[in-house]
Amino acid sequence: MADTTYRLILLRHGESQWNQKNLFTGWVDVDLNEKGEKEAARGGELLLAEGLLPDVVHTSLLRRAIRTSQIALDKADRHWIPVRRSWRLNERHYGALQGKDKAQTLAEFGEDQFQLWRRSYDTPPPVLADDAEYSQAGDARYAEIPSELRPATECLKDVVERMLPYWYDAIVPDLAEGNTVLVTAHGNSLRALVKHLDGISDADIAGLNIPTGIPLVYELDADFKPVTPGGRYLDPEAAAAAIEAVKNQGKK
Amino acid sequence: MADTTYRLILLRHGESQWNQKNLFTGWVDVDLNEKGEKEAARGGELLLAEGLLPDVVHTSLLRRAIRTSQIALDKADRHWIPVRRSWRLNERHYGALQGKDKAQTLAEFGEDQFQLWRRSYDTPPPVLADDAEYSQAGDARYAEIPSELRPATECLKDVVERMLPYWYDAIVPDLAEGNTVLVTAHGNSLRALVKHLDGISDADIAGLNIPTGIPLVYELDADFKPVTPGGRYLDPEAAAAAIEAVKNQGKK
Repeated sequence: MADTTYRLILLRHGESQWNQKNLFTGWVDVDLNEKGEKEAARGGELLLAEGLLPDVVHTSLLRRAIRTSQIALDKADRHWIPVRRSWRLNERHYGALQGKDKAQTLAEFGEDQFQLWRRSYDTPPPVLADDAEYSQAGDARYAEIPSELRPATECLKDVVERMLPYWYDAIVPDLAEGNTVLVTAHGNSLRALVKHLDGISDADIAGLNIPTGIPLVYELDADFKPVTPGGRYLDPEAAAAAIEAVKNQGKK
Repeated sequence: MADTTYRLILLRHGESQWNQKNLFTGWVDVDLNEKGEKEAARGGELLLAEGLLPDVVHTSLLRRAIRTSQIALDKADRHWIPVRRSWRLNERHYGALQGKDKAQTLAEFGEDQFQLWRRSYDTPPPVLADDAEYSQAGDARYAEIPSELRPATECLKDVVERMLPYWYDAIVPDLAEGNTVLVTAHGNSLRALVKHLDGISDADIAGLNIPTGIPLVYELDADFKPVTPGGRYLDPEAAAAAIEAVKNQGKK
């Protein structure tokens, strides 16, 4: 069919208790805060208003993404659709920075090192020890990941590499069946996916931020590539404002 | 293995907005009320306190069961487990009684007819017309059920017959893999399952009520039959009190 298009919706979770405290979160399983719950609800309302109704949802194994999907789908009256989850959609593992204050880390290590850890494509933070306070080494939800695969720190390149198998093996098959697919995940796992979809270079991905709670819709062609590069935010003005705000994060 | 046992947890959703109003609900997709949300949270706390941690959850396609599972699993820190859903776990379809006041129905049709519809094994209420206010005929979530299969009214016998294929084909395989399986569903779909598990007769099932929000745990033998008939409620005193209360429902 010449006019085959697939529909993919990306939704970054709303503000969490640690976003608010300005701490590096990574795989630490913090909940949404009240603002984050409202963002999730608004995300669902935007889907409903546009008639963009997901047939299946994919989430990470982290509470802030799971609850965002539940709240948004409840608002969109799609609470009943099939759910799939994978650690491969998790936020970037922030290594030894997990649990650390962002402003304090900036002051301690300086702007260059801070930006390298936050935005370089291939420089991960130091490894988080298995016995550290914010390690997920003993977490039952990751028991099925052999130690050589389970991250103890990640750069964005690592996220792309562990996320892509899930894109190809789990999300694409759902799209291929004709489903409208919602992916509810995190800043960096969604940046990894957008990098792949839009063919963004290792250098340029540093400048790309995805706002929270605003659905980003991609129409994909028969080769699962965007018909319109960059997709379309359901609330473009709010998205543009939020992208600006994220850029200034940590600079206080 | 001689000591093979499988672990199954049944959880009936908490009070809904229509339980409170004393209306027949069936497949109408009403939400939990505040009391129901608290019951769900307490169900999760009971699971956590007993260390009964589900590896996978099965729910109906109805919001009150879905939200009960989400709230309970969040409390038990098992929000991240795989989710499976099926209309086969839905509440009994109440036919033309859906949306009707229970006390008013009792007054209009008399005690005998009322109890026949509520508790007889094989007498369904009148069929609900597809164009009736509370019909689910146009509901997208049931679009994959051919018309000859999609109920417009059900007696408990009908529920047993449409639920059992899901027990055999979806729940038992999850148990057989060694998972602790949580089924979050409804008064009548869970009665249908308990009838099967405990081999309760068509006559005796009328007297069996399952309380809301209190996990009912079954250890199952290698043939997926209960080691202890009737299973075990995690809060036996509360369960006994609630069962009494359900018996008196509609008698006001």
